[in-house]
Amino acid sequence: MAELVKIALDAMGGDNAPAEIVKGAVEGVKKEQESFIYLVGREQQIKAELAKYTYPEDRIKIVDAADVIQTGEPPVMAIRRKKDSSMVKALMLVKNKEADAFISAGSSGAILVGGQTIVGRIKGVERPPMAPLIPTAKGPAILVDSGANVDARASFLVQWAKMGALYMEHVVGIKNPRVAIVNVGVEEEKGNNLVKETYPLLKACSDINFIGSIEARDIPNGDADVIVCDAFVGNVILKLYEGLAKTLIGKIKGSLTKSLQTKIGALLIKKSLKGLDATEYGGAPLIGLNGLVVKTHGNAKHKEIRNAISQCVAYKKGDINEKIMQAISNENFE
Amino acid sequence: MAELVKIALDAMGGDNAPAEIVKGAVEGVKKEQESFIYLVGREQQIKAELAKYTYPEDRIKIVDAADVIQTGEPPVMAIRRKKDSSMVKALMLVKNKEADAFISAGSSGAILVGGQTIVGRIKGVERPPMAPLIPTAKGPAILVDSGANVDARASFLVQWAKMGALYMEHVVGIKNPRVAIVNVGVEEEKGNNLVKETYPLLKACSDINFIGSIEARDIPNGDADVIVCDAFVGNVILKLYEGLAKTLIGKIKGSLTKSLQTKIGALLIKKSLKGLDATEYGGAPLIGLNGLVVKTHGNAKHKEIRNAISQCVAYKKGDINEKIMQAISNENFE
Repeated sequence: MAELVKIALDAMGGDNAPAEIVKGAVEGVKKEQESFIYLVGREQQIKAELAKYTYPEDRIKIVDAADVIQTGEPPVMAIRRKKDSSMVKALMLVKNKEADAFISAGSSGAILVGGQTIVGRIKGVERPPMAPLIPTAKGPAILVDSGANVDARASFLVQWAKMGALYMEHVVGIKNPRVAIVNVGVEEEKGNNLVKETYPLLKACSDINFIGSIEARDIPNGDADVIVCDAFVGNVILKLYEGLAKTLIGKIKGSLTKSLQTKIGALLIKKSLKGLDATEYGGAPLIGLNGLVVKTHGNAKHKEIRNAISQCVAYKKGDINEKIMQAISNENFE
Repeated sequence: MAELVKIALDAMGGDNAPAEIVKGAVEGVKKEQESFIYLVGREQQIKAELAKYTYPEDRIKIVDAADVIQTGEPPVMAIRRKKDSSMVKALMLVKNKEADAFISAGSSGAILVGGQTIVGRIKGVERPPMAPLIPTAKGPAILVDSGANVDARASFLVQWAKMGALYMEHVVGIKNPRVAIVNVGVEEEKGNNLVKETYPLLKACSDINFIGSIEARDIPNGDADVIVCDAFVGNVILKLYEGLAKTLIGKIKGSLTKSLQTKIGALLIKKSLKGLDATEYGGAPLIGLNGLVVKTHGNAKHKEIRNAISQCVAYKKGDINEKIMQAISNENFE
């Protein structure tokens, strides 16, 4: 039997914890034969949920944690003080090499802080990016960075481009992924100071398939697989995607049900928009740490948790962290 | 009879020039009884188009210009060298106080450069913003800046907030418009350096209704009327709006016509999405110059030109430039 990929799952994080998290763990461990799950959180609650299912008991283990970090808590303080929280205890499993990856639907801020301070960065990685997959007309694209570093330097963006490309190639399975930097035009002289400084550095990278600038209008069409930008811009892209889809769908649904007096239209739309959901690829990875840290949506249900488990297995089996170390050390030799 | 609002219209700019531009001028001059239009461009071509219509001949005058600035031309060079182009000649009419406003569907870069170098800034205005209206679920919102200043300073953003609020109140007719700064969260400590620096300055402005930060996800829902951000972020918002709407609509239309084998669905959608078009408010104003400069879409048709003419009349009749001067000089006294 191959070595198991060990995943520390924060059973108490998110709106639907622990029920949906536990359900996702059971589904994930069944789907991924090479996975082993630590369910970290309040033992009695987790036990009660687990009792609803049959599952390979040798591959799920409960780790008791009395405390829970809430969404509204100041992240730095929460991570520092709540040593007995499900999140901190799960992150400690990764730090101590007892687990390869961490998944949580809890506070984004706490995951960011905890990932960086407890799990720690791969040597040479300047700033680990939060890198969600966003849906496009041609499949998912990775957005690096979308949440971690709002005032970025050119050298950060170059590393994000490399890490994003490795992720898309080896976890998502896109051969030779197209890397582009978000810009206000496609001409090489366009951009703000950060983009103007980063562009030639990306162009000089021999280990990525840099295709130049991408305007935001071409992102939904799938014109690049790896979208590079600072986290302020990335956050705007991610959130506008969400908000605009919601408003448009609401508008269309309202119009259709009103006019046709039927739900057929709404059902068709729901079906056609299914491809615009990227949760089938799991959660947003925080890349560049000594272990994979995955943040799912706060309202994640069992499917997203199950998919995040598959994501962690693919990441570990793809030796992504070793590939990142290699890419970063090559950089230092250049 | 009230004093006429004189508008210099670049008859040769854009994909549909001069036919649609001239048609728009005829419609505009009929609709706006207080408007006077200079149609600037190749006289013979304009005359041939005008001959198709009846219109108040005392309120349309052709100004001959032999040359045309093309979209691909480097803007600074084009404005400097093509003295006999329709765009430069039309801008000169504003500079020389023969016209109050300028409209063009031509090169955005040339309009930006020409507006600033030929028409010139209102005294005290640091950087005039390009300020398009974007559609939201609750009506249009103004996006300042979306194209002119990619590396902005806090003091620019404060002026944009004031100018955007004046525009929304007196041209679009929104009482006490809600001003918000684009941010990665709504908590006051969030943001990149620019936002952190700008936020307290906006909060201290007594002459605007500052409601704090807005996340990009809440823009389409219409949670603010004046959206303040640097032009890099503004461009991303504007372009992503465009791209995402296009992709979503394409996806839904494809699914509907395929499934229902009918065009009813597509027609309904088209109708329901009509409210998501902001061209009924004219083009994007470049605010803060000694005269209004309006950039319409490159593919603008007669309706957008007609609406831009109404926009120029409302701007002039609302004494917006006088109000801006007042707001800026108050700032200097503070």
